[in-house]
Amino acid sequence: MKTSTLFGATLCTFLAAGAHAQSSVAIYGFVDVGIRHVNNSGVGSITSEASGGYRTSRLGFRGTEDLGGGTFAGFKLEAAVGADTGTAGSTTVAGQFFNRGSYVELGNKSYGTVRLGLDLNPTYVTWFENDPWYGIGMGSAGNLFNTTQNGPLRSVFGPVSNTETTTFYTRNMVQYFSPNVGGFFGVVAYAPREGALSSAGAAQQAHFRLGYNAGGPFKAAISRATSHAQVVAAGPVSLEVDTDANASYDFGPVKLAAAWRQFKADTSKQNNYFLAATIPLHSGNLQGWYGRSKMSGTVAANLVPGTSAGSIDRDGAAMWVLGYQYFLSKRTTLYTTAAHLSNHGHSFLSLPGGPAVTIANFAGHTSTGYEVGISHAF
Amino acid sequence: MKTSTLFGATLCTFLAAGAHAQSSVAIYGFVDVGIRHVNNSGVGSITSEASGGYRTSRLGFRGTEDLGGGTFAGFKLEAAVGADTGTAGSTTVAGQFFNRGSYVELGNKSYGTVRLGLDLNPTYVTWFENDPWYGIGMGSAGNLFNTTQNGPLRSVFGPVSNTETTTFYTRNMVQYFSPNVGGFFGVVAYAPREGALSSAGAAQQAHFRLGYNAGGPFKAAISRATSHAQVVAAGPVSLEVDTDANASYDFGPVKLAAAWRQFKADTSKQNNYFLAATIPLHSGNLQGWYGRSKMSGTVAANLVPGTSAGSIDRDGAAMWVLGYQYFLSKRTTLYTTAAHLSNHGHSFLSLPGGPAVTIANFAGHTSTGYEVGISHAF
Amino acid sequence: MKTSTLFGATLCTFLAAGAHAQSSVAIYGFVDVGIRHVNNSGVGSITSEASGGYRTSRLGFRGTEDLGGGTFAGFKLEAAVGADTGTAGSTTVAGQFFNRGSYVELGNKSYGTVRLGLDLNPTYVTWFENDPWYGIGMGSAGNLFNTTQNGPLRSVFGPVSNTETTTFYTRNMVQYFSPNVGGFFGVVAYAPREGALSSAGAAQQAHFRLGYNAGGPFKAAISRATSHAQVVAAGPVSLEVDTDANASYDFGPVKLAAAWRQFKADTSKQNNYFLAATIPLHSGNLQGWYGRSKMSGTVAANLVPGTSAGSIDRDGAAMWVLGYQYFLSKRTTLYTTAAHLSNHGHSFLSLPGGPAVTIANFAGHTSTGYEVGISHAF
Repeated sequence: MKTSTLFGATLCTFLAAGAHAQSSVAIYGFVDVGIRHVNNSGVGSITSEASGGYRTSRLGFRGTEDLGGGTFAGFKLEAAVGADTGTAGSTTVAGQFFNRGSYVELGNKSYGTVRLGLDLNPTYVTWFENDPWYGIGMGSAGNLFNTTQNGPLRSVFGPVSNTETTTFYTRNMVQYFSPNVGGFFGVVAYAPREGALSSAGAAQQAHFRLGYNAGGPFKAAISRATSHAQVVAAGPVSLEVDTDANASYDFGPVKLAAAWRQFKADTSKQNNYFLAATIPLHSGNLQGWYGRSKMSGTVAANLVPGTSAGSIDRDGAAMWVLGYQYFLSKRTTLYTTAAHLSNHGHSFLSLPGGPAVTIANFAGHTSTGYEVGISHAF
Repeated sequence: MKTSTLFGATLCTFLAAGAHAQSSVAIYGFVDVGIRHVNNSGVGSITSEASGGYRTSRLGFRGTEDLGGGTFAGFKLEAAVGADTGTAGSTTVAGQFFNRGSYVELGNKSYGTVRLGLDLNPTYVTWFENDPWYGIGMGSAGNLFNTTQNGPLRSVFGPVSNTETTTFYTRNMVQYFSPNVGGFFGVVAYAPREGALSSAGAAQQAHFRLGYNAGGPFKAAISRATSHAQVVAAGPVSLEVDTDANASYDFGPVKLAAAWRQFKADTSKQNNYFLAATIPLHSGNLQGWYGRSKMSGTVAANLVPGTSAGSIDRDGAAMWVLGYQYFLSKRTTLYTTAAHLSNHGHSFLSLPGGPAVTIANFAGHTSTGYEVGISHAF
Repeated sequence: MKTSTLFGATLCTFLAAGAHAQSSVAIYGFVDVGIRHVNNSGVGSITSEASGGYRTSRLGFRGTEDLGGGTFAGFKLEAAVGADTGTAGSTTVAGQFFNRGSYVELGNKSYGTVRLGLDLNPTYVTWFENDPWYGIGMGSAGNLFNTTQNGPLRSVFGPVSNTETTTFYTRNMVQYFSPNVGGFFGVVAYAPREGALSSAGAAQQAHFRLGYNAGGPFKAAISRATSHAQVVAAGPVSLEVDTDANASYDFGPVKLAAAWRQFKADTSKQNNYFLAATIPLHSGNLQGWYGRSKMSGTVAANLVPGTSAGSIDRDGAAMWVLGYQYFLSKRTTLYTTAAHLSNHGHSFLSLPGGPAVTIANFAGHTSTGYEVGISHAF
């Protein structure tokens, strides 16, 4: 048990039957459920029980095998869980149970790691690692963009969920993670399209990421993804470019962080940024961020039914989030969150958990939400 | 390992990677498969392999964290398994993998427990905890009612599975469990409807339960649920009221138990009861129950296609079950069950595993079944 | 932890809550992902990331309970995983998550074992246990047949996946495994059809298998399955007969193996065989096989759209596979595989991972593939 705990992921030893020798699997996850109230101005409000107000509810299996000489092999299989209703896996790609991670990897401390399978995008990590809500719930910095708005993501991917874009996860990836050398590290990744459609989760993607983390208070990263996606069979293959950067500094009494992200298609762009602060306070964290998303360029006629072709320069949104997390232990957290999102122009973004909105009834409106919940790690 | 076993649920320790400290997950479940023969009079018979003749086949993950001072946090994620064919999760609500339990909880020995997520209904527990087959298989006391009959459940929920009614599980629940004080304990629960349809598993429900269990031979409970459900979008929201009560006394050589349950809608009612006995016999249990369901009031025209509006006073069923379970160990049981259900009036209830029946070919008929199987807990 | 490893399958002890005493579950599986290139002559080629190039990616839960006197109970729940994209479970039968094994068993060292549920077919084991790729990926000996070809499998099952035929798994099975007596062992199995359709995975099947394995270099087995399947409701019930045999001898520097398999319907037959060799080489295995499939008899008009009724005597395919697996450890393997399949007559078989083919564009063509990957057991 001693050597395996050194790797921090391989923990309870099992002996696999049959031809295979000693094995090890760690079961881990989160169950996070809260009570949420979201009001979409002019449309109405809903009070709901919601999964993942602070951390994504999930169930995962992972392990690492020490191959000697600094070399190791490992795997991860991780499913998102809708803990309020008992769902598991992707709600948009049929049969995709392990939708948050499904890979095998082979690595060496000096030479880096090759990882094959479904994983977080490098551009996801750069954008969300500075988001105190890490991409989940009402406080997620992912609420600033989606594929239902007139803009570059909808131009390339059509009105499907973000999971098929470069914004979150990518399947069929070959990734290489460099070792950390003097604080610097890099990631390059490629995913073939395999002749499939973005509605089935497939796109030809190329990624890189360069970061700095010397173990000190300052961290930064830049990354870029290009994605060639086909929405319908025999339809055109479109190109999306996703570029982002982040930086953070931990002053001790306060940690400041910022991130910028740009989505670009043929004739349109979306720029997003946020500034976040974390203040340790009484066995907890007071956290918040302010951010904006801004469209520019033009879109084709009927991209969103009911709209006309032309400029999207006036479209965009501003959002702030404020929350406090009280740590009952390292594993169990009580949290409360307030968030407010205001749209400009034709934007009709809304916080998750509110009543359904359309461009007709919500363009330029505001979405406001409050939440309390329990987040438990295992 | 020693301290964690004191809590009886937290058993094999893992060390979670990242920021989280020591964690613990128990994997548990049942695999129960038997050979079943069911004859539906006038329709035919089927011999099948069936999952869950004595206990529901399932796979679960759970854990408890001791937070000190009698306070604890915990979670459960549990999926039903169709062990004869390899299915898992709900067969009626898409993507609902953890359909038997999906929650996080925070509790204290003196102040009680708050639980958020999907769980058994309080009225489910009151009705089924005295059913020797605990709601599963040919011997289930749940065979006395379903949403396909002319009656209150169909009036409110339409011809969907029982899983969307108050009869089994409820998603989006906030539950509070009181501590046991002098033998008395209580449960109150609420679930918002979140603007969704009962066909998607959603209903606005309020529950309470009051029970007595002083650790002696006598136990009893009463509970009540109200459910506001909408079957189709923009359709009416109907109210169902589900009330039940139970009592049991363990005399030693025999344990006697009884339960009563009433479903009520606007113009109709269904009353159900059963009397059960358990006799320990040669490393096993001889168990059985006799019960009846009885409709009253009126239903609308065409509630069940082919029937006319009007009185359902003559509709109902009587059922008996007899079974013997031989305990090979505390974990492994061999069982055999015989069951007989006879319908009155327009009722067309049948035991699970027989050929499909309709009101046209089965109203007033009888369903008879036999079964042998193996139930293994892990 | 020390004592539990003595049992070799029951490894990390948990204490089940409630009435049940000490329990044990082993979590095991494979994550196997590779990069594959397949060219289908005249159609095109695809480079893809693929799951299961050497061993099926999977996640399983199993346990054994010692009941004393040589008697034991056990279970298995095992799901296939598409590790490149995160899918899990069957892609052809809805909700079938544990599609590679879902059973409970009760056994005795002297009297044999009864197993109830979904499992590998006996004829699957006989054919694939001599296939170095054990039925998975580009190197699978299962690439010699499928239900899309004009022949007996399509006649009986229609153009559905092989998973509903006798070729892979069978649900609802009752199996009896004899003990090994002087090297000889047997299996008999039966699965009821339960009134369901083969498109839902149901067929009435009877199986037997007889084998020889005295722990020495020589092993052999024969098996036979009959399957009564109904493709569409109220349609005819057709009979398929699946017969196979195998033999292998391990000379030390080389292990030679062979298998033969015949599928038979009313008016058509398909004969298949392969010869395989395994040569241990530098901490790895050099392996390969050569095989052929050959149709005979006649099929009905329009069995495959665009073809006419009549003789299929000229249809068939030849295939070879060559691969090297380098064992980094007992659990982690690097592999590379090359495979070539050439069709004759109207056959349009192809290696997995290439572009979609039809009888119109691929009859008589060739499929060629290359692959490198990582296979990790846990």
